[in-house]
Amino acid sequence: MTNFVPVIICGGAGSRLWPLSRENHPKPLIKLGDGLSLVQHALKRAMGLPGAQDLITVTNRDLFFAMEDEYRQMDCQPRQARYLLESEGRNTAAAIALASLDAVQAFGDDVILCVLPADHVVADTAAFGKAVERAQQLASEGRLVTFGIRPDRAETGYGYIEADGEDVRQFVEKPDAETAESYLKSGRFLWNAGMFCFKASVMISLMEQFCPDILDGTRGALTAGRTTSGDGLAQVTVDPEKFAEIRSDSIDYAVLEKAPNVAVVACDIGWNDIGSWSALGEQFDRDESGNLIDGNVSAVNSSNNVVSGSGRLVGLVGVEDLIIADTPDALLVASRESAQDVKLLYNRLKEAGDETHRIHSTAHRPWGSYTVLEEGPRFKIKRIEVKPGASLSLQMHHHRAEHWVVVSGTAKVVNGERELMLTTDQSTYIPCGAKHRLENPGVLKLVLIEVQTGDYLGEDDIVRFDDVYGRG
Amino acid sequence: MTNFVPVIICGGAGSRLWPLSRENHPKPLIKLGDGLSLVQHALKRAMGLPGAQDLITVTNRDLFFAMEDEYRQMDCQPRQARYLLESEGRNTAAAIALASLDAVQAFGDDVILCVLPADHVVADTAAFGKAVERAQQLASEGRLVTFGIRPDRAETGYGYIEADGEDVRQFVEKPDAETAESYLKSGRFLWNAGMFCFKASVMISLMEQFCPDILDGTRGALTAGRTTSGDGLAQVTVDPEKFAEIRSDSIDYAVLEKAPNVAVVACDIGWNDIGSWSALGEQFDRDESGNLIDGNVSAVNSSNNVVSGSGRLVGLVGVEDLIIADTPDALLVASRESAQDVKLLYNRLKEAGDETHRIHSTAHRPWGSYTVLEEGPRFKIKRIEVKPGASLSLQMHHHRAEHWVVVSGTAKVVNGERELMLTTDQSTYIPCGAKHRLENPGVLKLVLIEVQTGDYLGEDDIVRFDDVYGRG
Repeated sequence: MTNFVPVIICGGAGSRLWPLSRENHPKPLIKLGDGLSLVQHALKRAMGLPGAQDLITVTNRDLFFAMEDEYRQMDCQPRQARYLLESEGRNTAAAIALASLDAVQAFGDDVILCVLPADHVVADTAAFGKAVERAQQLASEGRLVTFGIRPDRAETGYGYIEADGEDVRQFVEKPDAETAESYLKSGRFLWNAGMFCFKASVMISLMEQFCPDILDGTRGALTAGRTTSGDGLAQVTVDPEKFAEIRSDSIDYAVLEKAPNVAVVACDIGWNDIGSWSALGEQFDRDESGNLIDGNVSAVNSSNNVVSGSGRLVGLVGVEDLIIADTPDALLVASRESAQDVKLLYNRLKEAGDETHRIHSTAHRPWGSYTVLEEGPRFKIKRIEVKPGASLSLQMHHHRAEHWVVVSGTAKVVNGERELMLTTDQSTYIPCGAKHRLENPGVLKLVLIEVQTGDYLGEDDIVRFDDVYGRG
Repeated sequence: MTNFVPVIICGGAGSRLWPLSRENHPKPLIKLGDGLSLVQHALKRAMGLPGAQDLITVTNRDLFFAMEDEYRQMDCQPRQARYLLESEGRNTAAAIALASLDAVQAFGDDVILCVLPADHVVADTAAFGKAVERAQQLASEGRLVTFGIRPDRAETGYGYIEADGEDVRQFVEKPDAETAESYLKSGRFLWNAGMFCFKASVMISLMEQFCPDILDGTRGALTAGRTTSGDGLAQVTVDPEKFAEIRSDSIDYAVLEKAPNVAVVACDIGWNDIGSWSALGEQFDRDESGNLIDGNVSAVNSSNNVVSGSGRLVGLVGVEDLIIADTPDALLVASRESAQDVKLLYNRLKEAGDETHRIHSTAHRPWGSYTVLEEGPRFKIKRIEVKPGASLSLQMHHHRAEHWVVVSGTAKVVNGERELMLTTDQSTYIPCGAKHRLENPGVLKLVLIEVQTGDYLGEDDIVRFDDVYGRG
């Protein structure tokens, strides 16, 4: 059997899923009711495919550590994990060009790729495995293969594929309600799921023919970029300036609609693209009044609401068809029929410079993560998690003192001239101006509470002297 | 002129204003948009009345420190402040009996009282002053005086008074919509505002006649209770067992509807009883789409909502006529037409033993207050405020260590055998089992962050050795 490598494409701010998703915490990082994020589900799905051993992930370079954290928590690890790191989003044509060029280099001309967006849900993985198996056969015959979901409703939010057996007759745009109804009745039209299977070399020659500028631009950005690899992990970072020049286009427009002989595998796989709060809500538990609930909710005379909680009690009285999304620093209340308009609110917040469009209260860092618990006059409180063996940079702050209290694990601390080990319940005080470093020398996660005090508590008050992750 | 003393009655959980009000944080403690609580507005209103110098406050004994904190922040202090502290709510008849019996003792037979519920708003204080002046005249002639608000709509949520000039013809219950409409048209019907003015001795003789059991029970609970006084402050605490036996009845049923010769002063004073979220919303700022907002709100295609925020951003998309009340530990989303049903949710939470019906994240103590900022596995974080000169008890915990970080002010700390002074940015560590005490020796408020760590972090893990407030 030919070499087969799944490709997870992880991009998109997911502005319609604000405030759960943010610019720096995009849709694929959203956790479902089972505690796994969308990207963790994508990894499970990818590594469960017939013949899958290696993995390519295309994502933004700022998400590398977050993605790696997500993957690492799972049992199903790839033999080789290749990360293709973009400096900005240039749509799916460039992302698939990246994956194809890299795959040919890494795995040879014959490699078959299967592109899986990280922000979709597939409920029936067995049926999906069967569909991919068929797609692999078609791809090995040199065909470009799409997946067509058999519609169960006259959906106006997706593009359609008109099929003639396993051949694509045409791709059509999102239809109006009447057209969607006729598509549903005809039985020939399938939803375009945005998943593809093809030989990397075939994709490259199709691109040479239909979008040579995108292919050349991507090749240039790859050549001028840098690669680090070892230990089954490769990080391929594109050259930002060259990558910025690439034309932004979807693979559908750039290649699929022009290529001859495109195949489609029709399937029933429980597919959901998690495109909006309504779609995400379908993944939640349903109560006896039709409320879709993820969290701690008490509902009186309320039905058909989607509620995403964050620990706090949410009380509903006499409300219907609402979306309520509660996060530590921002709350959304929307009507379900306005689910698409959440994007308008997101854009307004972005224009107004409101930080809640960009930053989630939890930030991922190479060494772990921190969550801002509380801010007030002259103080800020963070919960800091440091991975085993990881270390923060040697640093100093001009305007704030820091108090560290270890909640669990062991901390190795440099505090001015002293070096000390702190375990559970122990603490230390870092005065203004003192050089300090925090390290987790243990094999368990280190959790500590940091209380900052001072007149200025911005993240930019930091002088880094020495950073194992090469940050300035 | 006769001696005149306003009486502020502060009771009622305000279950229809959950989650802003809680059993231990009732409606009168709710802050309005101007930063003043309802009870602070009540104090201003009371002390601004013609002839007012002293003050009686009837409230639950658990609210004494919270009420005193609220009053202390105001400029308009009474010459003598008398607190009549109930062990439980026994309705307005018992509360007014308490006030009348105590006032005769403290101020003599001729004293005129004016009863003001702490949870009402009166916008036109000048007009209110004029109305009280007229009520004082009528009261000094021995009449029991009510205040009748001229209706501006056919409200079905209030009781009415049918007036014949300044004489009450009859009291009537909450009417249906049609009756309310006819009341509004007639011009003879006024809203019963639940405010009263009378000579204390007159009230006592009316009670002797119409509800002698309530009067006797209250007298017994007062006699068996205890009084501490000095420095212009008197605390009169009723005997809990005797007070529990008193029949619970409203002053309207027990006295007003039976008494002859009751007077009514008709007035236009901008009265609002803050009985529900709709009423509270009327106190908020109105945006161009008719949203009533207290907080940080961004609204897209949304109108006529009432939003009470707590610092976090609240985003609205395509919603109308909702009530959204955001507090640190609980969130309410209700339709405005269900405003009265918030009580149903409150009752359900109470039955289910959910702590959010009872406790607010900020708790008032004799020495100041604390706010739980965050709880997680093995840690709890509090923001503690200690009043100037105040001191917590000497205490010890079996299961938790505490880390204190001073954010502002000065702390005098007993920590085991040591005694130390901490100022801004300084910290100390209290190990499990160590006796400790926290004191604010300064003249400014002391603010500190406490990080508790340990396997059990319940409030009941406390051994008190010595408490200036006499708690066990």
